[in-house]
Parts: sequence; structure tokens; C-alpha cells
Amino acid sequence: MKSKVENQGVKMEKQNKKSSAQKEEKQGITEKKSGDFSEWYNQVVLKAELADYAPVKGFMVIRPRAYELWEDIQNYFNKIISRQKVHNAYFPLLIPESFFRKEAEHAEGFGPELAWIENKEESEERVAIRPTSETIMYDSYGKWIRSWRDLPLRINQWCNVLRWEVKQTKLFLRTREFLWQEGHCVYATEQECVKEALLFLEEYKKMAEGLLAIPIISGEKTSGERFAGAKQTFTIEALMPDGKALQMGTSHNLGQNFAKSFGITFLDEKANRQFAWQNSWGFSTRLIGAVVMVHSDDKGLVLPPKIAREKVVIVPILFDESRQKVLKKAHELAIKLSKFNAFVDERDGYSAGWKFNEWELKGIPVRLEIGPKDMEKNQAVLVRRDNFQKKAVKISAIEKELSKMLEEMQSDLFKNAKKFLDGNIAEAKTWQEMKGMLDQKKMVLAPFCNEAGCEKEIKGETTATARCIPFGQKKTVSKCVKCGKNAEIKVLFAKGY
Amino acid sequence: MKSKVENQGVKMEKQNKKSSAQKEEKQGITEKKSGDFSEWYNQVVLKAELADYAPVKGFMVIRPRAYELWEDIQNYFNKIISRQKVHNAYFPLLIPESFFRKEAEHAEGFGPELAWIENKEESEERVAIRPTSETIMYDSYGKWIRSWRDLPLRINQWCNVLRWEVKQTKLFLRTREFLWQEGHCVYATEQECVKEALLFLEEYKKMAEGLLAIPIISGEKTSGERFAGAKQTFTIEALMPDGKALQMGTSHNLGQNFAKSFGITFLDEKANRQFAWQNSWGFSTRLIGAVVMVHSDDKGLVLPPKIAREKVVIVPILFDESRQKVLKKAHELAIKLSKFNAFVDERDGYSAGWKFNEWELKGIPVRLEIGPKDMEKNQAVLVRRDNFQKKAVKISAIEKELSKMLEEMQSDLFKNAKKFLDGNIAEAKTWQEMKGMLDQKKMVLAPFCNEAGCEKEIKGETTATARCIPFGQKKTVSKCVKCGKNAEIKVLFAKGY
Repeated sequence: MKSKVENQGVKMEKQNKKSSAQKEEKQGITEKKSGDFSEWYNQVVLKAELADYAPVKGFMVIRPRAYELWEDIQNYFNKIISRQKVHNAYFPLLIPESFFRKEAEHAEGFGPELAWIENKEESEERVAIRPTSETIMYDSYGKWIRSWRDLPLRINQWCNVLRWEVKQTKLFLRTREFLWQEGHCVYATEQECVKEALLFLEEYKKMAEGLLAIPIISGEKTSGERFAGAKQTFTIEALMPDGKALQMGTSHNLGQNFAKSFGITFLDEKANRQFAWQNSWGFSTRLIGAVVMVHSDDKGLVLPPKIAREKVVIVPILFDESRQKVLKKAHELAIKLSKFNAFVDERDGYSAGWKFNEWELKGIPVRLEIGPKDMEKNQAVLVRRDNFQKKAVKISAIEKELSKMLEEMQSDLFKNAKKFLDGNIAEAKTWQEMKGMLDQKKMVLAPFCNEAGCEKEIKGETTATARCIPFGQKKTVSKCVKCGKNAEIKVLFAKGY
Repeated sequence: MKSKVENQGVKMEKQNKKSSAQKEEKQGITEKKSGDFSEWYNQVVLKAELADYAPVKGFMVIRPRAYELWEDIQNYFNKIISRQKVHNAYFPLLIPESFFRKEAEHAEGFGPELAWIENKEESEERVAIRPTSETIMYDSYGKWIRSWRDLPLRINQWCNVLRWEVKQTKLFLRTREFLWQEGHCVYATEQECVKEALLFLEEYKKMAEGLLAIPIISGEKTSGERFAGAKQTFTIEALMPDGKALQMGTSHNLGQNFAKSFGITFLDEKANRQFAWQNSWGFSTRLIGAVVMVHSDDKGLVLPPKIAREKVVIVPILFDESRQKVLKKAHELAIKLSKFNAFVDERDGYSAGWKFNEWELKGIPVRLEIGPKDMEKNQAVLVRRDNFQKKAVKISAIEKELSKMLEEMQSDLFKNAKKFLDGNIAEAKTWQEMKGMLDQKKMVLAPFCNEAGCEKEIKGETTATARCIPFGQKKTVSKCVKCGKNAEIKVLFAKGY
């Protein structure tokens, strides 16, 4: 409970403390999440200073407040893959034209999106900026791998990639350049290869749910949605509040397709030469966009505490007579709460209320208010960013209470998102039913023939795409929701980003 | 002291344990450091699996063993700059043509090295891959900075940059694409701006000397060697074993040059509009090349322990009868020494001697040998990579002894490099003297008029360049070593990479 005194304090704060700074005040979010969702999203991203538009169309600047989320994701994931004996490396930005042609499907898939470099010297081969690094990495793999002793080879890289998308771009979700990780592993057997492709997908799911508090449906892509050059593509899919699905990460069983194109062979223990098996897997900075969409609200950014670097902002309630005492206590608390990267907002010329708004906009998970009346009671007030729940807590218990509040917030954010996801998946038996559900912005699970032509028709009529064949389903004996042919699987359809 | 028994053990190891793997054995370094230095360097880089040539000329693959050095440098430096309130961010890879033209010197400096993208759409402006990010970052800064409250603004980015060098390329030291950090800060006053430019340079020096064990001479660049668009450039210079100087990092006082070109202004506390002051500072993956050159030897890579991720390799000396017991102990030791990232090389089919060579080639700072005789004595043998010093130590004291050995090695590597540097700086008074010293591969300190024309003549006659005006020198009243005009400073000249 927040004390009345403190509320009063905010209002009473002396007017003469307010300088011209408040006139420059940046506006809060002026669009509602339930209104023009796209406009709301852009405002949150821009006003919370996560990103900015770049001078070149389709590019973005990732500002420090978002880049630190990316660093936290990197730190989390580097620990995971290091345990799996994956090593980070760095391969060149530019890829020769001939490499793209080596794997036919891959070349066709990425061809239209390549950015080519103007040739400096006639004699040099034309090169393009990497849209993904299979080809350039596997050229090296072909040289490095000789025997079964060199396998498995597990390499990951964190880098920028570029795809000259013609579709409309969107901050974080779809930009021509983005940052990502791409893991590329080589194995002696397909069994091992698929096993680990699924293992990395499972780690993606754990990260999305555990760290980002975004519930996931995982499954396999239909042939129509498969990665260019892959034998199988696995995916984790999330549902955004506007009813559109977002692919959060994929892993691919590449089979021996690239091994054959790039000559990746090894001598097995019986000295027979074999083609190797490969997988690749990646997620990108679009995860940051998903976090913003799923959790934020009309006041601005809401971050799951685990991913927020600064987990608590201390806003001292300042009056002239108790100013020094309160500030001193605020700084003591910041030191006490340093493992949460607590910081004190002691700027002059801004009211406490103005500061509340600013840190709500910027998504600090918990606000700690402390004023003279709190000090008398040896307490402080904690306010949760997501539901504005207030709690007066004794200073002696503050670390414990803060930990608890952050844990509850993390857990509640996930629960709410899960409830939304569960409430927005529907099962359709007929085409009419399915179309109606899609119009209601649902994800629709339906029996499907798994034929490319039929998939294309569904997309043509509804703009919905096959998101995945969810894992763990029982074998269906039914008719395809669209064409009526035999259906052995159920596929999840939705409009997508 | 290594026991005779253990040496015998290595030789006696059963022949039938050796499989075909040993026939595939990669050769060690076949060139001496004192021989063809360039060939020796390339062999160390390639055979220690630090890097590989890329298919596109002038590009390289940074392999995991080198990338982890880069990550360790990143982790070290991120902590430093975070304390200085610098935040990481990410700006776009592609820069519009018009941006390069805004700062005339900058445009002239980088123009010839730009890689342009083939235009996709006629209507879009021509864009190039960043050779450095001043222009693209300062365009955003111009939008973000409004008032003195927004200053100082301190942003850093870790990224790839591309300069289409025509000079011969060299792994790590000079490649068309490289990884680096570039810090870009904005201040209200020049005083603050220069102070921090020097502060970051000092941090570079501390890192080079403390982490990489490479002694530094720091100073200011002459006008001829200044960064394109800077008012002052500061540098840390190191001396490579072949007598060539290597620029290890620079920081620039950009003055108000870019602020004027990109409209970076702020309202000061009296509401007057002012142009801001800026600095920028960077170091790159060439640091890895410097580490290799300075410390490595005819057996391969030598790494300063602080930068080596795996600080100790445990090689068990295996005989059939004691195999299980020794392996068990080896793994116990690996756990005990896990904070050093100790690992056990228990591969079958390789002799202990073969393993010794491999890990010497790859630069693991300390080898721990343990065999049955050692176990009887409750000891293990530690061997230092740089001087091959052996020490039998009691198991109970192993952590302490290992720590001590690593510290001594770190300190000795620095001392040796410092001795080499000090022994190879000479002071010249006459032009004849200076030419002779340069021929003897010395760095030469000489009084200099500090005129661009004279600097050019020196370079023309000797290929040596002005490395820096070293800090802390007393005012010279002398004549220029080359032209005889008045000289108020001494400049350090050397042939450079």
C-alpha cells in the first residue's frame, strides 16, 4: 500500500524546483495498445529509446537500452551453448557469387534479397553481403574436416546479416540488416544431427519462456515454409497481441545437402569416406520486438525482470528540509540493492511524478519510492511496473521483498501471456470455421494435407501461413480443412509477421 | 624439476596405442621466428588454428581459438567502459554517400577504401559499407542531443568494419574487414572531451600492458598521421620483434568538426545554443596479431595467461596397468583446477609427446603432467609454456603453485617484451645516424620540425613513418633531424605495419 503522505508529497513538491527541463518533457505513449497496435508499438520502441530509424530505408539504430537486452540474451545463450561445446567464431561479411550457386534451393531462396558490392577490380569475383552464412562457413568446414576425430564440429557466430527485403520493414521485427546468432554444426550421423537440432530448439524455447516470459508453440515447418536448402526446419512460434504469429527462432536439419555441395566429407573409423550431416540454428534481435509487443502497455515498455539490466529505480521524494537525509538514504539503498543495478534518480528540476512516468515509459520493473514519512517508519514503497501494485516494506526486508516482487512479476508476465496464447488457439474442422477464426485473429489448428499447392491457396485466400506442425500431436486420420484430401497431421495456421 | 621417470614414461608409452591419427599429424612450425618472420607468423596463426584465409582476397576467418581471445578482450574492456558510463549500441552497416561528403577531410581520407553497394532502386541514394561510424552515428546524435542535460553522451559499439585496402593484407594486422570497438562521446566542453580522450587511451595502454603483456609508447600523432577529420589523434604504439611498429589503438579529439557538419548542438544552462565537442577511440582484432608476434616462439603460440581461456592442459601419462587410476586423478585435478578452465587430454592413439607438441603449438600456458610415479609421490609436474620451466609440486599445493606460475609467466612475458622495446629505441641527432638506426630495425627518437613536407621526405627515403610525439617529453630546443629547421619536439619514427 502506498501511503497517502507520499502521494501528497509528489503533488506538493515545490513548483520552483521545476525548470525549463519539464517543458521539454517528451510525451508519453499517445496511442493505446488496443487501438492502432502498430502505431502503439512504434511509439513504445521510439519513446522508450530502444531504437531509432536509420537514414537508409529499412535499417535501424539499436540504442543502448535495447542493446543491453541483446547483450543479456547473448550472455544467457553463450552459457548454454558453451555447455554444449559450441565455440564462437567469426566468418567474413562478403560471400562470392559462386558460393550461392552451389546449393540450388539456397541460391533460389536468397537470390532476390542479396546486396551486391560494386566490383573494385574486374578480375575479382562479384561478392554479396551475407544474408546467412551457410555457404561461407561450409567452404571452410570442407577444408578443416578430415576424419571422424574432427566431428562433431560445433561453431556459432554472433553477427550482422543483410536481406534486402521488399516487404514493409518494422523496427526489430523486419529490417534489412539485423543482428543474430547462427549455429552451424557438423556430425557423423543424421541421428546425432537431428537430435542436436531439436536440442538447440528446446533451448530456444526455454529461453523464450524462462527469460523473455513469452510462451511458445514448437513444431516442424511444412515444406512450403522450410529454410532454403534444409531437409527439415523446426521452429518456435509465439503469438503477438494483435493476433499475428511471430517466428522466434528456427533450427534446421540440413541433411547432407550442403555437405555434398561444399565437399564436407570425413574418413570414418573404418577409413571410408562419408558425407557429413549438418544442422544450423538461429535467432535474432527480433526477439526484442517480441518482448516489447507481448508485455508492454499504454504507459510504455514493460520488461520481464530477468532481462532488465536495471531492475529497480529509486525515486527519492524530496522536500527542502529533509532533502539531504532522504538522498543519503536513497544512495544507501542503491548500494544495498546493487545486485539489482539499482540507481537513484536525483535529478533536479523534475517532479517525482515526472520521474515515475519516465521510468514507467522506459520499463524499469520496480520503482522504489522513499520520502521523509517513509524514513520515519523505516520503510520504502515498492511499485511493480506491470500491475502498479504497491507495497510498503521495512528497509531491513527490502532485498528479500524486492527479489520476491521481481520473481512474481516475471512469473505473472509469463502466465498472462500464456493465458492469452491458450485463449487464442482454436481448432477448425471446416474451411468456413477456419476463415472465421482467422478473422477473429486466432491461431487455428486444422487437419491439413501438407501439400504445397493447398498451402498456397490458403495463404492466397486468407494471408495466413502454416506456422508449424506442432510437436507431440497424435496421428490424425481426417480430411484436409481446405481441399478435403486425406490429412495425417494438424497444422497451426496464422497470419504472421 | 621433471622426474626422469616421467620422461621415460613418455618414450615408453606403448607403440600399439598409436593409431593412424598420428600419421595425419599436423606439422609444427617449420620456420624460425628469427628467420623469415612473416612466414613464421603466418604459420603460427594458421597452425595454432587462430585464423584461416577466406575465399575473398584480403578477408579472414577468425577461428574459435582466436575469437575467444577477442571475447576476453571484450569482457575486460566492457567492464572498464561501463565504469566510465559508456553504453554499447549498434548503428547500421550501410552509410549514405552524402554523409561521407559532410566532413571534407573525413571524405578524402576514407573515399578510396569504400565498398559501395550496387543500387537496387534508382531512387535510393548510393550507400557504402562503414569504414568507421562517425558519420552514421553523428547523424543520430544530431537528432538526440537537445540540451546540456543530454551531455555527456557516451556510446560504444562492437562491430565489423570494411576498408578496401590496396596494400598487401596480413592476417589480423591488415585485412579488408576487421572487428573492432569504436567509442563516440559528446561533451559540452573541449576540456572534458580531451580529458576523456586521454583517459580512454590510458585504459588502452593499461589493457595492452596488463592483459596482453605488450609494452606501449603513447603519444600524439603528427598532423600527417592524424585521423581524417580529427583535431588531435592520440596513439599507443608497440614494437614488433621484426622492428616494425604497430599502432595498437587510437583516440581522437574531433573538436567541433563533426558537430558542425552534422549539426550537433545543445542549449547550455543559459539557454544559448552551442556546438558540442566530440572524441572517438578504437582498437581492433589486430591486437590478437600483436599478441601472437610479440610472445610466440618457434614451437608455436605463446599466450599471456590472463588472456588464455584454457590456462592449463592436463596430460596423463598412461600405461595399461595404471591407466584407470591416473585418468581418475587427472579428472579430479581438472575439477580442482576448473577456475583455470583445466581440461584433460585423454585421447587414445596419441602419445604424450605428441600431445605436448600440440598444446605447445596452440599456446596453453601451463601443461600439467601426471603419471603413476607422480601419483606415488602425491605430486604432479607443471611445465611453463614460455620457458619450459618444470616444477614437481604436491597435489595439495597445486592450485597455489599454478596460480603463482601463471602470474610469473604473465609478468615475465611483459618484462621480456619491455626489455626488447627498451633495447630497440635509439635517439638520433643526425640524419645519417637515424638512417643507420632504422636499417638496424630500431625505433628512432629524433628532434623534428613537425612539418608535413619534411615528414613525407623521411618516409620517402626510409619508408619509416612518424609513430608519435611521445607524451611527457621536455621541450626540445634543437634542429630537425632531417631539414635542420627549428625543432621543439622529438618524434618517434619507425617502419610500421
